[in-house]
Amino acid sequence: MSSTSFLVNGMPGAAISPLDRGLAYGDGVFRTIAVRQGQPLLWDIHYRKLAADSARLGITCPPADIWREEMARLFAKQDSGVAKLILTRGIAERGYAFAPHAETTRIIMRTALPAYPEKNASEGIRVHLCATRLAHQPLLAGIKHLNRLENVLARNEWHDPEISEGLMLDQEGWVIEGVMSNIFVRSGTMLVTPALEQCGVAGVTRQRILELAPSFGLTPDIVHLSLPELMQADEVVMCNSLYGAWQVVDFNGRTWAKGELSTSLRRVLQE
Amino acid sequence: MSSTSFLVNGMPGAAISPLDRGLAYGDGVFRTIAVRQGQPLLWDIHYRKLAADSARLGITCPPADIWREEMARLFAKQDSGVAKLILTRGIAERGYAFAPHAETTRIIMRTALPAYPEKNASEGIRVHLCATRLAHQPLLAGIKHLNRLENVLARNEWHDPEISEGLMLDQEGWVIEGVMSNIFVRSGTMLVTPALEQCGVAGVTRQRILELAPSFGLTPDIVHLSLPELMQADEVVMCNSLYGAWQVVDFNGRTWAKGELSTSLRRVLQE
Repeated sequence: MSSTSFLVNGMPGAAISPLDRGLAYGDGVFRTIAVRQGQPLLWDIHYRKLAADSARLGITCPPADIWREEMARLFAKQDSGVAKLILTRGIAERGYAFAPHAETTRIIMRTALPAYPEKNASEGIRVHLCATRLAHQPLLAGIKHLNRLENVLARNEWHDPEISEGLMLDQEGWVIEGVMSNIFVRSGTMLVTPALEQCGVAGVTRQRILELAPSFGLTPDIVHLSLPELMQADEVVMCNSLYGAWQVVDFNGRTWAKGELSTSLRRVLQE
Repeated sequence: MSSTSFLVNGMPGAAISPLDRGLAYGDGVFRTIAVRQGQPLLWDIHYRKLAADSARLGITCPPADIWREEMARLFAKQDSGVAKLILTRGIAERGYAFAPHAETTRIIMRTALPAYPEKNASEGIRVHLCATRLAHQPLLAGIKHLNRLENVLARNEWHDPEISEGLMLDQEGWVIEGVMSNIFVRSGTMLVTPALEQCGVAGVTRQRILELAPSFGLTPDIVHLSLPELMQADEVVMCNSLYGAWQVVDFNGRTWAKGELSTSLRRVLQE
């Protein structure tokens, strides 16, 4: 039985037209937001990112109040779970051209929090090096859009449930991100994350960690990160809005002792 | 009023779940097929391509008979129009992983033939050089998949109705295709079309023209095509399954006299 419920343009349980451009072309953006006791965590940052991503595609994002009110309809005050927000360019007959102010399709879905193993947080995770590489497309880089076939192919390279994430490189071999995560690498007091100007998704938790780093005595930076640099790092941490932060302890033939960074980050991210 | 009708997994007028992976990730493939007097043109080639594209994404394509029968339900014997077929990996809760034999979502839509100006065929077309460039992704190149944001961005670079197509280059500047078309370039008795190993969609009409070229006394080839080579060609022709073939007569500061190739191709393609 599904625990999912949803609103489409504010209508409970409504369905999507086969003519929606979100389906036809992946012409839209999305967010995945943790909800605790009715509150979408980091909502202001998520909304700013949703609006900015929409603007880059020329899609008009509905005001924050509308999203906020509809999330409140799906999540009562005591509810926790995941809110997935999708915004598409709306319905059109065939053809790539779009009208500049077409009516968008706004979807909010409520799902349960994923059942991640507790040891992912307490012991760290094993990570697969993906053969699927991210293409360079600066016009779409950083945006959490609906064209995610690269992530689908990468995620399905492994089926071992002991492997919790996959690390993706770009076509030139630079480290970019996880399949569902961003990545940070600590070397001494430097905490770096890859530049996402050519590909990748610039997540909200990545942004939060860049802001939080100084409070841990770490100097954040955005860099071109090579695989050899990652392999020599003191700690490698992956992050997203649902699980917070996990340390990578087994990747590409190397193991790392469990450190403190991911635990500290998770604590602060949940405040 | 919409002239569209559709079947979803054989159900008339059914809608798409917001959980469909076609919407969430663009996780699927499609075909656009001209239908004349109830007959989907070049169906055998379209089906082989649909099945081959699905296989490359690990999606199980339903048998040809099912698609054929459902098209017959949407198009009576005297009907003409467009059949758009979409196949997605089906419904799933959040997450990129997929079950190997999940139930797919099969959509057939009937729409009217686009109302292209007659002069596109008789006089040729003006074409825009797109600033949006195609990313290199060999794992997806050639496939008519649902991740089409590059085409959306490219198509919306121009709004002049006198411009009928846009020409897309890849990130390295090689000529690849039109926004909704493939491209051929004739120089003397050579008829070449770009290689699509890194990006682009390998259309059915492109394949047909490669097969037909010798019957016109032309030698077909698949090449890396530069923009300067295209500019010096004797004739440039764009093609797809709906309009057949149009000659490019105005592009990037050059005009071409109207030749015979596009007219000849269109006649044979419609047989």
